[in-house]
Amino acid sequence: MAENKKIHILDSTLRDGAQGYKINFSTSDKLSIIHILDKAGIDYIEVGNPASNPRDAAIFEILKDEKLKHAKLVAFGSTRRKNTNVYDDKNLKALLSAATPVCTVFGKSSLFQVKEVLGTTDEENLKMIEESCRFIKVHGRELIFDAEHFFDGYKENKEYAVKCLKAAEKGGADLVCLCDTNGGTFPNEAAEIYEAATKAVKIPVGVHFHNDCGMAVASSVAATEKGTRHIQGTFLGIGERSGNANLINVICNLQIKLGYECIPQDRLKNLTLYAREMASINNTDIPYEMPYVGKAAFTHKAGMHAAAVLKNPSSFEHIDPYLVGNERRFPASEISGKAIVFERIKKIVPNLSSEGKEAEEILERIKEMESMGYQFEGADASFELLVRKKLGLFKSYFKLIYYRIYTGVGTPEDYNASATVKVQVGDELKLMASEGNGPVNALDTAVRKALEEFYPALKNVKLTDYKVRVLDGADAATGALVRVLITSTYNKRRYTTVGVSRDVVDASWKALEDSLEFLLMKLEEI
Amino acid sequence: MAENKKIHILDSTLRDGAQGYKINFSTSDKLSIIHILDKAGIDYIEVGNPASNPRDAAIFEILKDEKLKHAKLVAFGSTRRKNTNVYDDKNLKALLSAATPVCTVFGKSSLFQVKEVLGTTDEENLKMIEESCRFIKVHGRELIFDAEHFFDGYKENKEYAVKCLKAAEKGGADLVCLCDTNGGTFPNEAAEIYEAATKAVKIPVGVHFHNDCGMAVASSVAATEKGTRHIQGTFLGIGERSGNANLINVICNLQIKLGYECIPQDRLKNLTLYAREMASINNTDIPYEMPYVGKAAFTHKAGMHAAAVLKNPSSFEHIDPYLVGNERRFPASEISGKAIVFERIKKIVPNLSSEGKEAEEILERIKEMESMGYQFEGADASFELLVRKKLGLFKSYFKLIYYRIYTGVGTPEDYNASATVKVQVGDELKLMASEGNGPVNALDTAVRKALEEFYPALKNVKLTDYKVRVLDGADAATGALVRVLITSTYNKRRYTTVGVSRDVVDASWKALEDSLEFLLMKLEEI
Repeated sequence: MAENKKIHILDSTLRDGAQGYKINFSTSDKLSIIHILDKAGIDYIEVGNPASNPRDAAIFEILKDEKLKHAKLVAFGSTRRKNTNVYDDKNLKALLSAATPVCTVFGKSSLFQVKEVLGTTDEENLKMIEESCRFIKVHGRELIFDAEHFFDGYKENKEYAVKCLKAAEKGGADLVCLCDTNGGTFPNEAAEIYEAATKAVKIPVGVHFHNDCGMAVASSVAATEKGTRHIQGTFLGIGERSGNANLINVICNLQIKLGYECIPQDRLKNLTLYAREMASINNTDIPYEMPYVGKAAFTHKAGMHAAAVLKNPSSFEHIDPYLVGNERRFPASEISGKAIVFERIKKIVPNLSSEGKEAEEILERIKEMESMGYQFEGADASFELLVRKKLGLFKSYFKLIYYRIYTGVGTPEDYNASATVKVQVGDELKLMASEGNGPVNALDTAVRKALEEFYPALKNVKLTDYKVRVLDGADAATGALVRVLITSTYNKRRYTTVGVSRDVVDASWKALEDSLEFLLMKLEEI
Repeated sequence: MAENKKIHILDSTLRDGAQGYKINFSTSDKLSIIHILDKAGIDYIEVGNPASNPRDAAIFEILKDEKLKHAKLVAFGSTRRKNTNVYDDKNLKALLSAATPVCTVFGKSSLFQVKEVLGTTDEENLKMIEESCRFIKVHGRELIFDAEHFFDGYKENKEYAVKCLKAAEKGGADLVCLCDTNGGTFPNEAAEIYEAATKAVKIPVGVHFHNDCGMAVASSVAATEKGTRHIQGTFLGIGERSGNANLINVICNLQIKLGYECIPQDRLKNLTLYAREMASINNTDIPYEMPYVGKAAFTHKAGMHAAAVLKNPSSFEHIDPYLVGNERRFPASEISGKAIVFERIKKIVPNLSSEGKEAEEILERIKEMESMGYQFEGADASFELLVRKKLGLFKSYFKLIYYRIYTGVGTPEDYNASATVKVQVGDELKLMASEGNGPVNALDTAVRKALEEFYPALKNVKLTDYKVRVLDGADAATGALVRVLITSTYNKRRYTTVGVSRDVVDASWKALEDSLEFLLMKLEEI
């Protein structure tokens, strides 16, 4: 790889990403994120603005003792305030106290913003940029100048926008980064403006695109083809408003398709894992459809497509999913062929023959269940139980004798339902009652209380998600078939089970029973 | 607007979108989606493949009686099978029987795909395309030929790819659409290949991009700038693998930023509403960060940004959010835009003043309900009831005194729950009992039986859809807040109501009560 194919990536998950809707990182979350990014081989990690709030300042203190393998940490802060002495500027002093090898100073490069928002003169803003850069630079730090609103500023008044870059260069900045702060720039404009701006200064020029038009990844790629070697964004694309350029997509597009090197080549195959680790910190899943690393990115649901992919994967895949640590999926749905379902069965029972009677019987059973409204796409644990039951590889851990539930209005708000459950474990019978908010919650609580006496490990299973879907029942409505999906978590292992019935309580019971049986089976295997 | 600025949009939510991970549309969902797209002014709605499964065929039967205001319906199907007589082709016959004004025939335009996946010769594939197009065209339908794998095919063997387009043209196709079936094409390649291909045929050329590199919107915009006037995608971007070009983003980028006309100009301001209605059909919310219409798209969380936006919105917004019916949000300070909600209120009470105390009180009430988990975007009828109640324009038709429900296993399969309901109408009390499959069905049946004696018209209301959504499932699981949406039909009028509670039965009751009250009110107005 020639040197000029190296792209430097700056991740701003902890700074711009933290401004995303419903995003809220604890200090421990921040440390985890830094270590994921470091593992991934990201070059620069922007940690936050040490002057903006005490929590950001605190993380820099902790980081002084933290060892990283690859990444350089970056502290982010504003130019000095207007009409003040740069040596007295608290924000700039805080930036130095953060003690990171790299600092980013951001300033306005749009004359409109300078006048309307800063309320100062064109000349004063240029001084603010130059003096602030010099102040940081004399302390020996590597310095990035983020030219806020550059693209809009360039469209309004290109001479002034370029002057801001030159002021930073004069102040000693090692790199200027053109920011599309409002996210309104299109890829072709981005490329043109990048090309023009880069001629105005001798130092390298980077880019930072926001996703307000849904094209931040495309703009980053377009600017790279015009020569940039420094790209900012966030690993999963989170951030203010519609977020930033999704760095995973930028990295995959540039490195896999165009031969650039954004991260060390051997990290590519872990990108899916890193993406999921990152998402789980924020207690979410990455969107199924996220390119390259999402669960659906290489999922072939249409029967015709699935059949073609089994013949030759490149028929409906733009890259080999294993390159980025993702995998090919064939959700067992009503339009699936046999070969696909068999692929899934083989993951559970690797030495099962596709020709034998047993495979045939499992497939028959799945078809039968699907016609009853079951869907095993997303219900990995119920699928595995079904396969094992059919092969005689499963023995039940408990038996429900009965449940009885009573509910009605007029009872206390939070506990308006009560359930009585009788279960059998071995030769022992156990009767248990519980209240709950709603019939399903009452049933869930009662059965767990009953079983915990036999299987104390069940105390550590959490039901982390509960979904109800009413299946096509044009006339049936409230009497329609209902599919319940329950996601449970034990330690860090998440698994999903499914139940179908005309009665939401009964469907929930089936999914719950699978959830408990699956866990008990897995615990016994260990 | 000059004629050449008109872009024709084809939405494939019901066909390609239906192949998205965890997407599963009922017949009633499909009808709702068609009506949203029609309201939005989408030109073509691809409904499905009538030959692929009986459910797709059924929807075309129903659609024969459905009136649309703007959109043309499209049936989608394959070219004839290899080495067969086109006149005997069941798929093509099914395409005609769908009786839509427009048909799309799809065929391979990559020689690699022809040989590897179809397993036929280059010549036979060209015949398949030409003959299939002619077969449809002689029946007078408007015909689109979808050139599957066109971009990859062009890169492998451009002569052959272009021959496929010419075969379709010769067969009488009105338009050929270049499909990036694997989604691996970059915007600059997309533009170049589009430009080259369009020179090969005299008929118009459209594009269909998949989002596997996260750049489908950018590619659609790039192809438009090279001259295409027909763009396919899905309204919310859903679809196989990483989905399709998000049409909302394509429309906004082209119409707001570049002056094209994709939908009638007066529909732009409802796009956010349509997006949310569409998402609620699939029992989800649109991603917060979705450009233009997401809840976060104009949310300013950083204090500095919020302050600047209050000074001048264009400081951190690329467009005015009200253009697309979205609103500015400041989560930190809870200053939320009200104009949008007020627009909806005005549809119910046209002469209400936006300045008065009444409007203020309604808005307060809506905010309060939303903080409890209500969402009125997909629940028109509950919204109207709320407004009328707040204005004193509603009198109740009945009162629930109590309900009591008993359920348990061990009772008959179809009627394992029984409900007792006591209602009051005027001075009369009515006690009624009913069995049902599940607690909600038993309650529904009992209350309708009780009320039908007073209001016989209720016999003609059908509950056509019933959806349950678990809110904030993280720790609460089966005890989590639940939102129920009930869609009811009376004659051909469909309306939706909502209820929220920690108890699925209670939430269902609230939605059911609104459904019955709303209908009785509307019947009285007639």
